[in-house]
Amino acid sequence: MLFSKSFISTLREDPKYAECASHRLMIKASLLFMVSSGIYAYLPFGFKILKKIENIIRKRMNEEGAHELYMSALQPLDIWEKTGRTKDLEEVLIKFKDRKGRDLCLGPTHEEEITEIVKRYIFSYKQLPLILYQIQTKFRDEPRPRFGLIRSCEFIMKDAYSFDADGSGLDLSYEKMFGAYNKIFNDCGLEFITVEADPGAMGGSLSHEFMVPAQIGEDKLFLCSECNKYFNKAGKCKICKKRLAEKKMIEVGHVFKLGTKYSTAQGAYFLNHRGTRCPLIMGCYGIGVSRLISAIIEQNHDTKGIIWPKNVSGFQVSLLILERENESLFKQALSLYQILTNAGYDVLFDERFEPAGVKFNDAYLIGSPYIIIIGKRYLRENRFELEVRKTKMKLNFNKDELLNFLEKEYEINR
Amino acid sequence: MLFSKSFISTLREDPKYAECASHRLMIKASLLFMVSSGIYAYLPFGFKILKKIENIIRKRMNEEGAHELYMSALQPLDIWEKTGRTKDLEEVLIKFKDRKGRDLCLGPTHEEEITEIVKRYIFSYKQLPLILYQIQTKFRDEPRPRFGLIRSCEFIMKDAYSFDADGSGLDLSYEKMFGAYNKIFNDCGLEFITVEADPGAMGGSLSHEFMVPAQIGEDKLFLCSECNKYFNKAGKCKICKKRLAEKKMIEVGHVFKLGTKYSTAQGAYFLNHRGTRCPLIMGCYGIGVSRLISAIIEQNHDTKGIIWPKNVSGFQVSLLILERENESLFKQALSLYQILTNAGYDVLFDERFEPAGVKFNDAYLIGSPYIIIIGKRYLRENRFELEVRKTKMKLNFNKDELLNFLEKEYEINR
Repeated sequence: MLFSKSFISTLREDPKYAECASHRLMIKASLLFMVSSGIYAYLPFGFKILKKIENIIRKRMNEEGAHELYMSALQPLDIWEKTGRTKDLEEVLIKFKDRKGRDLCLGPTHEEEITEIVKRYIFSYKQLPLILYQIQTKFRDEPRPRFGLIRSCEFIMKDAYSFDADGSGLDLSYEKMFGAYNKIFNDCGLEFITVEADPGAMGGSLSHEFMVPAQIGEDKLFLCSECNKYFNKAGKCKICKKRLAEKKMIEVGHVFKLGTKYSTAQGAYFLNHRGTRCPLIMGCYGIGVSRLISAIIEQNHDTKGIIWPKNVSGFQVSLLILERENESLFKQALSLYQILTNAGYDVLFDERFEPAGVKFNDAYLIGSPYIIIIGKRYLRENRFELEVRKTKMKLNFNKDELLNFLEKEYEINR
Repeated sequence: MLFSKSFISTLREDPKYAECASHRLMIKASLLFMVSSGIYAYLPFGFKILKKIENIIRKRMNEEGAHELYMSALQPLDIWEKTGRTKDLEEVLIKFKDRKGRDLCLGPTHEEEITEIVKRYIFSYKQLPLILYQIQTKFRDEPRPRFGLIRSCEFIMKDAYSFDADGSGLDLSYEKMFGAYNKIFNDCGLEFITVEADPGAMGGSLSHEFMVPAQIGEDKLFLCSECNKYFNKAGKCKICKKRLAEKKMIEVGHVFKLGTKYSTAQGAYFLNHRGTRCPLIMGCYGIGVSRLISAIIEQNHDTKGIIWPKNVSGFQVSLLILERENESLFKQALSLYQILTNAGYDVLFDERFEPAGVKFNDAYLIGSPYIIIIGKRYLRENRFELEVRKTKMKLNFNKDELLNFLEKEYEINR
């Protein structure tokens, strides 16, 4: 991608409404556009990141045999009345009547709809176990939209639902999803922990949250710095009795053993191997996809900008030409850009007629893991400088050394 | 994909509410689930088709240098008041107030929102031309939902927007999109025509519709069977004076030269090469993505089921084993399944313990372009039968011949 042809347009000034680093950086690096409070559009750079994260999730879900589908955003309110959750979620549910008087809502989650679907297709234990998932926009009438994508009225979720014939089946599905979530958050370059949590309005017997430590976290955990263990409640460590320190956390994933709450209320039964009619045993598994982008940036930035983990960066490499007006240098830079592109790298080539300072500032803000700098020195020495965005380490390479270096760095990720 | 592990679950009975062939077949082949009138969920098989079509569109849009983004479904009503379109679209706009009294709507289209975005990022003719697009769910308070995905309350659109410095720039962007649309509908295996149309509520100077002839079409055109030309109005052919015949059409795409209607109303200006402040010259370009699935099926089916064009089929090949209980035959079939899968084909392997009749019926309904049949004869002769879904032609191959045949058939498409 040539910078001059991209829609990337960085801002010099901090947006006044931004309440935290990730929000500020997403606006400044033109990932996001605020349409209205709590409502955002993903600009092309943000869309690229979103797709990378979605594809990481897809890969890990498909590995576990889950099937992707795509449910509706509009839902008839009557399916929510079967489970009584119109009341539980009253404060955030966006409801309205259509012109024919039909009561509709915008789905903040899809347990009711998936149960309606599955009860029409699953009749026998032979069709189980089953895991279905989708990546889709959800809606909440959010009283206090905050921190950009962390708490917004419209957001993207990955929600999966498992269906099993018995408790041990559910245990296995839960374990599969738990394992997939660990891989997904690792792939995203996140430092995270898992904690047992209260199932709350979702219902069921057991749930775990996946939590990312961050200054702007809205959930609280308590850390024993001695044992390096987290606890749900304040006080002293149960192991070493040391006083626990409060830590703020962003919830990025939540998995639940739902049991039969929804299948019983909505009549989703199957015949077991003895021919007995039983309610489906369910689990549900959510990831806040848009929120994940915020969490990644909260954990991976410095004063100059974003520092993308390799797997989720919009571009694998930023290439800067320092003296654009030097035509023979430009030819060399263009040739390198083509070599890298042909080798399969996603390169952002900053070929604008801008001062070196502007280009460096933008490259740091945009946050590609590796920045290749080609200046006049290249014409004498045939060598590039490469800066590692995270460590600030500067390396000096000829063309072959550069290609070898990148191949090694991206080996696992391509 | 093993049939027994897929979520594909065909229905024997015709759903009573289905009003046309595509609707009926999409329900029977488990592409779609009706959540409520005019509201559908895409089941895994339908989702697969949807992704194929989306990727055809993406490829052709990206080839023209268009950038993909993802705008919000929720839109503040005040941006619609700037252009006066709250009135024009009053009958289909889904509007509501959130808990803080903010007036919101669910976007049936995104001219207003894209104009708000672009006016914040585009300042100079140097940033033009620009084409932005998205593939996204849109909403209409549809008075008469009909024909499944043809006319629904929630549907998926590809909408693109071009921004140019002058009329000749717009002409060029329009031509690019026009060309891309021709390629997209060709890739989808559609028979289609283009006609000049009335810009209507969209505004602007020129528009063209992409129309697919089909029994259930809701638009009317008039054909001269002598000249093979279509006209907007009934009567006689302008060329040969023969009486025109009425033809029903499904609109699958619509492109508009908008001009400055939105940029003037919303204040989206740029500085031209003389330093003069001018409104951006806009075009917009829509494809009904979900409706396209219906149109493809309307044109490609028979009494037994769907006949997918090669590029959009969920599976490139269906593989049927006729005697599943024969273990040595099953081993051979499984080996062929693995060979085909490793060669990169998307294969649906029907390995259920079901009678041959059930498997054939399902294969015809599901509609993969090629059906490979492996029966007892294979153990004697080492030969498979291959049935071409569209022509019903039956061919007889050994393994190498089969691979050569498929390679040739899918050459362009892989």
